[in-house]
Parts: sequence; C-alpha cells; structure tokens
Amino acid sequence: MLGGAATYISLAAHFFTPVKIVAVVGDDFAQEDMDLLTSRGIDVQGIERVAGGKTFFWAGVYSQDMNDRTTLRTDLNVFADFNPKLPESYRSAPYLLLGNIQPALQRSVKGQMNGVKFTGGDTMNYWIKDFRDELLETIRQWDFLLINDSEARQLSGDHNLRRAAAKVLAMGPKILVIKRGEHGAVLFTRDFHFMAPGYLLEDVFDPTGAGDCFAGGFMGYLAGRGIRPMDAQFDPIELRKAVIYGSVMGSFCCEKFGVDRFRTLTREEIEDRYQEFKACTEF
Amino acid sequence: MLGGAATYISLAAHFFTPVKIVAVVGDDFAQEDMDLLTSRGIDVQGIERVAGGKTFFWAGVYSQDMNDRTTLRTDLNVFADFNPKLPESYRSAPYLLLGNIQPALQRSVKGQMNGVKFTGGDTMNYWIKDFRDELLETIRQWDFLLINDSEARQLSGDHNLRRAAAKVLAMGPKILVIKRGEHGAVLFTRDFHFMAPGYLLEDVFDPTGAGDCFAGGFMGYLAGRGIRPMDAQFDPIELRKAVIYGSVMGSFCCEKFGVDRFRTLTREEIEDRYQEFKACTEF
Repeated sequence: MLGGAATYISLAAHFFTPVKIVAVVGDDFAQEDMDLLTSRGIDVQGIERVAGGKTFFWAGVYSQDMNDRTTLRTDLNVFADFNPKLPESYRSAPYLLLGNIQPALQRSVKGQMNGVKFTGGDTMNYWIKDFRDELLETIRQWDFLLINDSEARQLSGDHNLRRAAAKVLAMGPKILVIKRGEHGAVLFTRDFHFMAPGYLLEDVFDPTGAGDCFAGGFMGYLAGRGIRPMDAQFDPIELRKAVIYGSVMGSFCCEKFGVDRFRTLTREEIEDRYQEFKACTEF
Repeated sequence: MLGGAATYISLAAHFFTPVKIVAVVGDDFAQEDMDLLTSRGIDVQGIERVAGGKTFFWAGVYSQDMNDRTTLRTDLNVFADFNPKLPESYRSAPYLLLGNIQPALQRSVKGQMNGVKFTGGDTMNYWIKDFRDELLETIRQWDFLLINDSEARQLSGDHNLRRAAAKVLAMGPKILVIKRGEHGAVLFTRDFHFMAPGYLLEDVFDPTGAGDCFAGGFMGYLAGRGIRPMDAQFDPIELRKAVIYGSVMGSFCCEKFGVDRFRTLTREEIEDRYQEFKACTEF
C-alpha cells in the first residue's frame, strides 16, 4: 500500500501550508495514490518516475504492544540510485524538510535551493553509525534536527536525554526535537526545553508513519505561520505550538491503517485535538 | 541504609501537611534514622519496634539506563508478621495513604479510622496476581489508587492505558494515577485525564523511592489544601497540581542516593521546580 516518509509528511503538512514533494517512484506507482496527493493540492512535479523501475518497498510486523517492529523486507528499488533534482519552481521555497536519506544527498538538495530560510530534517541510526562525518557536516547547517530518542543517544554518545540534547545542539542545529513514540516529544533549544505528552489513543491501529506525520505537522505549522529561525528564538511559543501540532498529526496517523486516516481528516478535527492536548496538560 | 515506602512518603509529604507514620521496625533500626523523621516533625508514635527482630531489608541493582532493577535480596523480617494497630491519636486523621502491603491489612487500617475523608493507596503485581479478590474488595472503597503502568495493565487485563484506566475506575476508585517512571504520570477520573511529563534530570543518581515520593507529594498536597474527594471532582485543577507536586518530589528523590536529597531539600526548591514544570509544558 501507499507509504513512505514524503507521503506521510505531505499529507500531514498540507493542512497548514502548500507542499511540494521531491521523491522517486517506479512505474508501478499507482495513479490513485498520485491522485490522492494531487487532490490535496500537493505539488508532485518533483516526483521523478523511473521507467521500468519499481518503487521502494517495505514490509514489517509490529509487536503486540506496538512499541517494536521487525522489518520483514526492504527493497530499495529506484530509491537506491535516487539523486534528487529540484524543479526550477521548487528552488525558491522558504522552508525545506529533508527526509531520511544519505546525508550527502540532503546537502545536495539544500544546495539547489535559493534563499531557503528554515531547514530541518531527519536521519537514522545507519547514517549516524556509518556516515558520521558526512552527517555532522550536513546537520551543522540545519535549523532543526528531528530524531527519536535512541538516535539522539547514539549521535551524542550520552544516554541521558538532557545531556544528549546539549551535545547535539553543540553540533549546529538551533533546535532539536526528540520523538519518544507513545511518550511524546521534547523540543530543545539552547535556552529552554518543551515537553509534549504522547496522545493517549484508545486504539493504536498502525503507528507506521507517525514520526513522519509529526515532522509534517511541526514544519507545516511553522511554514504556515511564516516563522523564521530568528523569530523562533525570540518567540518560543510558536515552536511549542508546532510540537503540539506535530503530536496531533502523529496521533491521527495511528488511528487507521497506512495513510487511511488522512483520507477523511479535517482541519476541524485537528483543532479539536489540539484543544484536547491543552485540556489534558494544563495546570 | 534508610529506605522503605513509609519513609519516602513521609519525607515528601511533610513539606505540605503534618504526617503520622504507621510502620514496623526491628531493634536494629538506627536512632539517627528515627531522628531524621522526628526532626522533620513527622509523628513516629505509630512505628512499632519489635524487640529482638530485624527491620525489613531490600537490596537491588539497577540497569545501566536506570529503567530496570533486579532484586538481589528481600528479607521481610519483622514486616512478615506486621499487623498495623493505629495509636488512638491517629484515628481521627482525615487523610489516609495506604502503602503496598497485603490488601486485608490495608482494609484493617482503614477500618480503624474514624471518619477518614480521603483514602488512597498503592499495591503491586504480587497482590494483583495472587490476592485479586481481596484486592478488589479493598480498592473498591478507595478514593484513589496509585499504581504503575504495568500494574494497571495487569489489574485491568488491557494493554492500552486509556482502556485499562476505564476498567480500573469501574472497580471503585474515583481517581486513578498511573506512574510511568521517567515518562511521568497520568491521572484519570471518569470525566477527564491529565498528563504530567517526567522531569528531565541531568543525572538520575538513584530512582529508588521515586514512586513513593510521588505518592507523598500527591497526597501531601491534597491534604495540605484540605481537598475532599467531592471538591476534587468539581475542581480538577487541584488534582492536576497534586500530580505535579508528586512529580516534583519524585524528581528530587532521584538526585541523590537513598533519602539523602531530603536532608537538604527546601520548600523554595520545591516551588522553583513546580514553576519549571509549568515552563516546560505550557503552550
């Protein structure tokens, strides 16, 4: 079925801001999946279609409590040779969110942008472990880095989250968001940190993509409000709200299989859940 | 060294309200430990000293990340035959917090009270598994139950925390607080829930007793404010504040070995940390 970081990020972010995808697919990519994206106003001009190629494929199985997953199959297919080229119309976009891919490619995408004002992205254990120097060179130029707790520990070499965050912030990013799965997320800057709880779902149907939806909600909100990194430093309330919107989008993602929740989700439901977050954390 | 639920609860609660301990020790219990309690104004008249007996002893080792612990030794000693008898001066106290012990004994203590208005307590997996009927009969009469997430799952038979909470509330308690260790705590009533994050410590030195300090701060705050269960239902803000004060006390507990942090802790430090909780959760 339809999946992938770019898909989840776009479907979450488009509620807040116009979105342009850069990605690669094979000619097996279904027209109805492309239609879902375009029906939401998502710009797909940057989706490269490789003739005769097959789309990236992943299959996995979750543990009973949904907190662990085992990969059954990963076929990189056309993703293996992906070298993102931005369409001319993309290059002047002010916000850039870089999905998890080889750090050198993330840097190449940023290099193709003209005057981008807010850059952030994701990475994973593989790049942290085997491409460390390349990764450090890349994130040094980012405004924010968005990773999970085990990645933060691996990147910093420190188990304690607060000390780990301080070490990662010293590597360059002005903002670090650490995702903790069902336990929420913590945003760190040099000046403060903000903790958002994980939304307590009655049923966690499928957590696949929740972290990407968090990223889409977080970046989407900042972009929609026109926040610049400098603003964020002087008005941290917008960063806090962005974390909550990220959490809201991640929570919706888990409610149905794959991207299904986004087929019916409305802006009103998003606002209601934002208010629920307020109600269950205020004191 | 000095330890035990009653010790941690009292040292946390006395910042908010007068405390009377009911407990049993052997004649090996050190005078300097008794002095620590009395120096804080804690009433120790209900501490029974068994001549020729030895005090309960526990030893354990924590995992590297402090999230798991292995018991090395548990000697029940005089605790094995403990049958709490309340001094006359204790019986009219309005607030009763029952530590983790055989549910029939918890019920017997409550039975010795005259007109107690707010009763809550703790339990553990052993009573949930092997004394289920006795436990259910006991907690049916409580205003609140305070357990950790795995105990809530075991008691309810439901892995999902929200559904588990609904099932536990249907067993009698009006209020359920689920402790999640480093991930904070969630308070549930039939009408709402409230989520407190775990305080991000720079160093977790020793988490022993943190859950008991949470209980002491939670109950201590409610008692200090004179909250009745009925008030709590109509003014949930006090319950929320109680959860935060519980979290504050639990966080201090982890900063030093055993009860050492309570030798120097001040009310001002408690208020400062309460404000820190506000600052890192408000949006």
